[in-house]
Amino acid sequence: METVTSLADLRTHRIRLREPVGLVPTMGYLHEGHLSLVHASMAQCASTVVSIFLNPTQFGPREDLNAYPRDLSRDLDQLGAAGVDLAWTPTAEIMYPLGFQTWVTVEEIASPLEGSLRPGHFRGVATVVSKLFNAVQPQKAFFGQKDAQQVAVILQMTQDLNFNLEIIVCPTVRESDGLAMSSRNVYLNPHEREAAVVLYKALIAASRAFKNGEHDAQKLRNTLIEEIHKEPLAKLQYVSCADINTLKELEEVSSGRALLSMAVFFGNTRLIDNMIIGVD
Amino acid sequence: METVTSLADLRTHRIRLREPVGLVPTMGYLHEGHLSLVHASMAQCASTVVSIFLNPTQFGPREDLNAYPRDLSRDLDQLGAAGVDLAWTPTAEIMYPLGFQTWVTVEEIASPLEGSLRPGHFRGVATVVSKLFNAVQPQKAFFGQKDAQQVAVILQMTQDLNFNLEIIVCPTVRESDGLAMSSRNVYLNPHEREAAVVLYKALIAASRAFKNGEHDAQKLRNTLIEEIHKEPLAKLQYVSCADINTLKELEEVSSGRALLSMAVFFGNTRLIDNMIIGVD
Repeated sequence: METVTSLADLRTHRIRLREPVGLVPTMGYLHEGHLSLVHASMAQCASTVVSIFLNPTQFGPREDLNAYPRDLSRDLDQLGAAGVDLAWTPTAEIMYPLGFQTWVTVEEIASPLEGSLRPGHFRGVATVVSKLFNAVQPQKAFFGQKDAQQVAVILQMTQDLNFNLEIIVCPTVRESDGLAMSSRNVYLNPHEREAAVVLYKALIAASRAFKNGEHDAQKLRNTLIEEIHKEPLAKLQYVSCADINTLKELEEVSSGRALLSMAVFFGNTRLIDNMIIGVD
Repeated sequence: METVTSLADLRTHRIRLREPVGLVPTMGYLHEGHLSLVHASMAQCASTVVSIFLNPTQFGPREDLNAYPRDLSRDLDQLGAAGVDLAWTPTAEIMYPLGFQTWVTVEEIASPLEGSLRPGHFRGVATVVSKLFNAVQPQKAFFGQKDAQQVAVILQMTQDLNFNLEIIVCPTVRESDGLAMSSRNVYLNPHEREAAVVLYKALIAASRAFKNGEHDAQKLRNTLIEEIHKEPLAKLQYVSCADINTLKELEEVSSGRALLSMAVFFGNTRLIDNMIIGVD
């Protein structure tokens, strides 16, 4: 595996890669979720590029940028062992040099849910992903369903800006008890870690209610709320039962698919999770 | 020359083009200025793509979108005769389908001058040019110096978003009396057309003053103003003597290059022109 930092080195190595090229954008501190994206890319593409960049512009001023876990040498070991062709590890100075002033914003679909609670978050995501797409020029890019609204924003942006690539969305990878893999799970103390399974339990409970015929979206949201409230360490921020395409809250899950999602605090650690219901 | 409309057809034909590919983005109603960009592309690139798209998002609600001159069949004849490989003529529905919601904004450099008088103009420009770059994936793209701030905005955006292409800026092409070529010149009645040469005369006067040792930016702006005021049909909107890199107004043209620019109305017709001074 080659590892490059500068944009010039990236381009030099990119030209030599066999196509189709798959890109897996990450913020590092890789877990099995990231590696599932890497494996998907390696199965579908002739070459795989993984970017590792802890993107400051998608963090709010009171968020956990400085605390965010990092372990670049372990990350690179894992990517090398997985057989990745090229790792790109740009610095913040490379991605946002002095005078940087161009932003990509996605409007409606980035407004509710995470967008309403994390102002500027999706502007940072859309901007850095645009930069990664343009720098790497992949034929496919791989994202995890865990960040459901991020997926929706990137799909919209890719279509709106005519990016010439395919977005591949891979299923959320979970721990054995159901907790969605996340770099932020490392923040949890043992009690919180045990309690955090309540997100998955709540999604399963609401998903079962739907399968048993409950199509009233508010009742499904109430099921999520009730399940979360059973866990004393969990502080609920929001639950949602939204249209999968617009992310607008539904009254009824009548036709098509819906997205159940939520954000829950355990101490200072904010976790999100989601599940799609109504799959044909 | 092949002419395509849909994005899918563009991509099919794009794959077959020999590289490097040059892109000349236009809004149609082609004149010698556009053709100079085409000729530059053909000289520098193995293939040349010209887009013709009257981009609605860069026009304000009170601007001249509906009046803007069009003549697609003459445009295509000219491009065919020039030996262009591929003309792309997307519709507004193709470029901005229902649900479109992603915008590219450039901040500081898009704020003064045209940006301050035409709110949203450069957002429309940056967005459509991003779309054209992603759709065509050229190695070089050609723009005219006539739209000096547009050039600055696109250079900034190209760098900030890591577009993997080179921006080539071509000199302003002028009529024999010095009037800069513009699709909007057809709006002028014969008296206004004659009067419109005052933009060039003013730029020449200020440029001469600079060459004769006048480095006080306000005095250079005053020279522009005085020259414009000599023409009764001209209604001055702004003059500027700005830093070529930041487009901020200068106090003194002490070192490096400066941009003299202005916007002037003749009746309802708004013309812009510019000249760079201090070329090494």
